[in-house]
Amino acid sequence: MKKITEPEKLQKWCETRRNAGAKIALVPTMGYLHAGHLSLIEAAKKEGADEIVVSVFVNPAQFGPKEDFGRYPRDPKNDEAKCKKAGATVVFMPADEDMYQKHHSVYVDEKELGKGLCGGRRPGHFRGVCTVVAKLFNLVQPHVAIFGQKDYQQVQIIKRMVRDLNFNVKIVMAPIVRDDDGLALSSRNTYLPAEARQNALALNAALEQAKADVKAKKRLAWAPYRTQIVRSLRAKSLNVDYVELVEQESLKPVEVLEKDTVLLIAVYAAGTRLIDNAIM
Amino acid sequence: MKKITEPEKLQKWCETRRNAGAKIALVPTMGYLHAGHLSLIEAAKKEGADEIVVSVFVNPAQFGPKEDFGRYPRDPKNDEAKCKKAGATVVFMPADEDMYQKHHSVYVDEKELGKGLCGGRRPGHFRGVCTVVAKLFNLVQPHVAIFGQKDYQQVQIIKRMVRDLNFNVKIVMAPIVRDDDGLALSSRNTYLPAEARQNALALNAALEQAKADVKAKKRLAWAPYRTQIVRSLRAKSLNVDYVELVEQESLKPVEVLEKDTVLLIAVYAAGTRLIDNAIM
Repeated sequence: MKKITEPEKLQKWCETRRNAGAKIALVPTMGYLHAGHLSLIEAAKKEGADEIVVSVFVNPAQFGPKEDFGRYPRDPKNDEAKCKKAGATVVFMPADEDMYQKHHSVYVDEKELGKGLCGGRRPGHFRGVCTVVAKLFNLVQPHVAIFGQKDYQQVQIIKRMVRDLNFNVKIVMAPIVRDDDGLALSSRNTYLPAEARQNALALNAALEQAKADVKAKKRLAWAPYRTQIVRSLRAKSLNVDYVELVEQESLKPVEVLEKDTVLLIAVYAAGTRLIDNAIM
Repeated sequence: MKKITEPEKLQKWCETRRNAGAKIALVPTMGYLHAGHLSLIEAAKKEGADEIVVSVFVNPAQFGPKEDFGRYPRDPKNDEAKCKKAGATVVFMPADEDMYQKHHSVYVDEKELGKGLCGGRRPGHFRGVCTVVAKLFNLVQPHVAIFGQKDYQQVQIIKRMVRDLNFNVKIVMAPIVRDDDGLALSSRNTYLPAEARQNALALNAALEQAKADVKAKKRLAWAPYRTQIVRSLRAKSLNVDYVELVEQESLKPVEVLEKDTVLLIAVYAAGTRLIDNAIM
């Protein structure tokens, strides 16, 4: 496995490989890798990639001024070892100042899908995400890029960006990976004290219950159902940011809980923001 | 010469040619081609391009709601013939709805260089320019793209976009082409009544005078010099938008008229916006 830190070197290397006929997959991450990230590498293999480029970069542009950019967990050595073991062929670990040069002034922004959900609470977040993903697409020029379903809104925004800016990249959404107890894997889980972690299981519980209810009862009015979920989360001391039911691609709110809708939840558990979702 | 109207077809064709080792040049235009555009095709040849893709697309996203999008001059048949004669290998003439799909919601925006000059008078203009150029870059994946110096601010913004979003494209700025009387060629010159056209010669006259003065006197205080230029333009019934002296790359205002600065002028002549500039 190659380790590359300079953007220009990455671009040249990928261009050479692409010109030689290699199929290139990109797995963008912010590091502190867990089994969820490694499943993205597996998905890249399933896409038949000859080269799997994993980027490890805590992207300052997607953090708000009061968010956890400074204390976001980092462990580059361990990340490198995990990438190698999982079968990545390149790990890209750039310095902040090489990704955002002095007087950086160009951003990619999505103006519709990013307004609600996490975008409502985190203004500028998806602008940062789109910008860094556009940069990575241009550096790697991948045939395929793998994103995790846990960031469901992000995946839809990236798909829209690919469509609207004509990026020549296939986007693959890999399923959420959960711990044995059902908690969706997240680098931020490391912030959780034991009790908060236990309480956080209420997210997946609510999603599982909703899936079961949809299976059994087919169609349920969303508004009262939502109230129930909010109550169940609050009962576990979770500070609810949103509980929303939307269409898969447009992210438009839906009034009836039924098959093919997406249920998304965001809470704060002991101050840590956690998100989870499920396609019904 | 190939004519392509569908973005996906353009992307596939360019990808095939690129994979086959061809060097690809892009010449983005809004059509109604004149000798200025054709000089961009010549510049593409000088870059050693095997394929020269000329896009002809009046980009709605870069026009303000009260601007001349509807009446901007169009002559696709003539443009096609001119491209062929000039040596383009592909002309790309997409439909508006194929470039901006329903619910288009992703834009590329430059936040620093685009604030003043034309960006001050035309809010959203450079967002539209950056967005369409990013789209064209992704469709064509050119090795080199040619822009005219007449849109000097645009070229600097595109260069910044290439740097900040890591596009793998070389940007070439081709010199301004002028009519025999000195008027910078522009598709909008067609709007000008004879008298306004005559008056518009004051733009180039001011630029030439400034270049001569810099050559003779080396350093001149800008503020009083600017006042003289504004007077000379007003004397010709030109409605002055801006007369500015800036640094070449940063577009920061400069206090002293001297070598290597850029003098930029924008006026309205009988209601038609005209721009011109010169590097001192």
